[in-house]
Amino acid sequence: RIMRPDDANIAGNVHGGTILKMIEEAGAIISTRHCNSQAGEPSVAALARVERTDFLSPMCIGEVANVSAEITYTSRHSVEVQVNVMSENILTGAKRVTNKATLWYVPLSLKNVNKVLEVPPIQYARKEQEDEGKKRYEEQKLDRLETKQRNGDVILPVINPEPHTVGYSQSSLIHLVGPSDCTLLGFVHGGVTMKLMDEVAGIVAARHCKTNIVTASVDAINFHEKIKKGCVITVSGRMTFTSNKSMEIEVFVDADPFVDEPRERYRAVSAFFTYVSLSKEGKPLPVPQLLTETEDEKRRFEEGKGRYLQTKAKRQAQMQQAAQQ
Amino acid sequence: RIMRPDDANIAGNVHGGTILKMIEEAGAIISTRHCNSQAGEPSVAALARVERTDFLSPMCIGEVANVSAEITYTSRHSVEVQVNVMSENILTGAKRVTNKATLWYVPLSLKNVNKVLEVPPIQYARKEQEDEGKKRYEEQKLDRLETKQRNGDVILPVINPEPHTVGYSQSSLIHLVGPSDCTLLGFVHGGVTMKLMDEVAGIVAARHCKTNIVTASVDAINFHEKIKKGCVITVSGRMTFTSNKSMEIEVFVDADPFVDEPRERYRAVSAFFTYVSLSKEGKPLPVPQLLTETEDEKRRFEEGKGRYLQTKAKRQAQMQQAAQQ
Amino acid sequence: RIMRPDDANIAGNVHGGTILKMIEEAGAIISTRHCNSQAGEPSVAALARVERTDFLSPMCIGEVANVSAEITYTSRHSVEVQVNVMSENILTGAKRVTNKATLWYVPLSLKNVNKVLEVPPIQYARKEQEDEGKKRYEEQKLDRLETKQRNGDVILPVINPEPHTVGYSQSSLIHLVGPSDCTLLGFVHGGVTMKLMDEVAGIVAARHCKTNIVTASVDAINFHEKIKKGCVITVSGRMTFTSNKSMEIEVFVDADPFVDEPRERYRAVSAFFTYVSLSKEGKPLPVPQLLTETEDEKRRFEEGKGRYLQTKAKRQAQMQQAAQQ
Repeated sequence: RIMRPDDANIAGNVHGGTILKMIEEAGAIISTRHCNSQAGEPSVAALARVERTDFLSPMCIGEVANVSAEITYTSRHSVEVQVNVMSENILTGAKRVTNKATLWYVPLSLKNVNKVLEVPPIQYARKEQEDEGKKRYEEQKLDRLETKQRNGDVILPVINPEPHTVGYSQSSLIHLVGPSDCTLLGFVHGGVTMKLMDEVAGIVAARHCKTNIVTASVDAINFHEKIKKGCVITVSGRMTFTSNKSMEIEVFVDADPFVDEPRERYRAVSAFFTYVSLSKEGKPLPVPQLLTETEDEKRRFEEGKGRYLQTKAKRQAQMQQAAQQ
Repeated sequence: RIMRPDDANIAGNVHGGTILKMIEEAGAIISTRHCNSQAGEPSVAALARVERTDFLSPMCIGEVANVSAEITYTSRHSVEVQVNVMSENILTGAKRVTNKATLWYVPLSLKNVNKVLEVPPIQYARKEQEDEGKKRYEEQKLDRLETKQRNGDVILPVINPEPHTVGYSQSSLIHLVGPSDCTLLGFVHGGVTMKLMDEVAGIVAARHCKTNIVTASVDAINFHEKIKKGCVITVSGRMTFTSNKSMEIEVFVDADPFVDEPRERYRAVSAFFTYVSLSKEGKPLPVPQLLTETEDEKRRFEEGKGRYLQTKAKRQAQMQQAAQQ
Repeated sequence: RIMRPDDANIAGNVHGGTILKMIEEAGAIISTRHCNSQAGEPSVAALARVERTDFLSPMCIGEVANVSAEITYTSRHSVEVQVNVMSENILTGAKRVTNKATLWYVPLSLKNVNKVLEVPPIQYARKEQEDEGKKRYEEQKLDRLETKQRNGDVILPVINPEPHTVGYSQSSLIHLVGPSDCTLLGFVHGGVTMKLMDEVAGIVAARHCKTNIVTASVDAINFHEKIKKGCVITVSGRMTFTSNKSMEIEVFVDADPFVDEPRERYRAVSAFFTYVSLSKEGKPLPVPQLLTETEDEKRRFEEGKGRYLQTKAKRQAQMQQAAQQ
């Protein structure tokens, strides 16, 4: 579809959240279709996890987004989908790959939303494809368990914060879940949640560096808990780490089923977003260093640094590998 | 994309206007891409005309719309695009053709919006395809001229109208044209205009018969005048004809460039929409007869009857032809 | 949230209606949460009234709106909420108070929408707060009764009106109430209604003075009747008064439950909006005087003048008081 002014920031770059939403919709369609391809109980595929996603090049207003999706692995109860996004300038014909994302979906019964159904197996062209998929499946399963524990954290308000401290840029928004945000099961689309998360992360990044910012990458996101129609969701973000040219922001999503339910407010999702600051010519700018004050902030900064160095090392290894081939 | 509650009426049927908007966006993308496929001045394809479109079967919330587009003819300054829409129930896998539409686009220069550029010719598989395309091109050109003359008509307000008269159901809405409604050239997308037209026509139909109504077909629509960002548009509809089970509504679009421009309000588009009334089980219901009062209303009723009988005869001829093959 | 191009007019000023909608959503969330804070029948808070609201300074595209809400009084069956809106330019860090609004909500049972539930009392820091709240409660109750009587008025169409007469700028729009417009109870959000009212009032103002206009204030709005999903609402506006630099527009909302209900069209809301005209540099411009023709128009002009002088006097008294402190 054609990118509109509302899909973009004031510099004309399409929001990362808009792209994540398109990716998730494509993934939800192909995996729901697959899970219903054999006779049996009808189901709707719900997003369980998105693997780390890089935004390779920015998309602009007026360009056309081409989204393609393919199922690459199935376990007994989950589907792995690979989604590619290309941006096309229909005036010049230029095409660029802007994103490659991997998503995991789980089929939930249309009649009983708490029942996870079985997934019809796919055929692999080669045995290795199945083995590699299984390895990816085990890895993400482990990672899901770990993040579940991290999820207790809360963001406290700070009064009169100093510039470039954590409290200075931290932000939160609330959103009342409406019918258009939801799947046939009455739960929020994963893509809608990711779009709100990107919006908050973008505000945190812009408050910190006061320039035009764009999403560079999103770490793996695990969707631990469904969010029902009628809930109020609070999306909060705080900066955890800065390198010379990037900012890492942690985002939390809390759901508050405030009507008709005896349930307490709960943490539904959390994730790390990385942003870069761009000049008017689209060149990366240096980022002011984050000032950490408390022990927790210093610890999170070090953890962020660890993730940053790990990603950097991985990327260098890939580039060396590519150069040798 | 997946059909959402916002795309549909309360009975769950997707609005004809939503489908027309998707069709037009697909047509705009493929024809803009084609017109820029050769080096030269960059252009944006603007919608000039949509041929008569039938809504073959209703689409519902939760279904996925698959839209495909193909260029079928090019004249020196225009492109004919064929767009097909299939609805897919991703739970059952059932697919149905819901629409086949033919649209005509004209490339306008990105630098000078009043300059129509030349269209790169396409290759035809067979010579007859080119000849048939040329015939369609000449026919639509003639029809465009005719409707331009009909366009002087205005809808006058009626005070305390009787049920089932023309004045009883006539309706109009105003809309301030925002950035998301517009192309790169700053003019309203044809699809946005058609969606508003369908909205008004639907309200006229519902006010007349007080039941759940759906779009059955749209007669050829000609876009004579562009509408600029910041205009207020008034979309008005009045019923012109009823058969036993259908209603014909004429819709006018007037643009009012009220800020910053010396220009008067002008008629931009007009068209006929046909609606049917459906029971809760989705069966067509009888429609109350339209009561005509003035000479003009009687004349328009007879003209509508003419169009209705002509369409009916055409459809029967097609069915006989299909039966003989 | 960040203000987008669609939230603003072509000069980049955010529509007053967008801000009113955000204010109402914040109020609805906090009061629904409060009303469900004690065990008992679940309820949804419905907007009953918004006190007079001034737009202290314009908000622009790209700025972030910070909305905060606090419960300031509870009667047996209603909740008073104070909402503050700050606009923040995240590039410069500049913050400005743009709105302070007071809203009244009433808890309706989720199971039986016609049943008003009891509100859990809040604790006051000082006894005077309770007394002042009670006084405000009694005052608004009285005012509600009065406006209910004014509500019979209708706007009649005018053919070929002269420039700057009432008929020249009067406007109306129709809107089909969709699922996204509604609360969990299936009734239109008060904020959605106010946004449509501001849209019509803005078009009336722009038609009158043909310049860039912004909302300056909204008089108290009473929501006498709920509007159900599937209704068609007609929002009509006419100018009632002009001072040298401001225009007062009266707006009516009529609901037409045209499908599936035996009920007649009814008046749901009415209110007065005040607009000012701005030059390209954002300075207030003189406004062409409204030409009144009929007795009714002259009477409404005088009444508008009375409201204008009263507000002006109040503001001067407040400024003197502030200067003395």
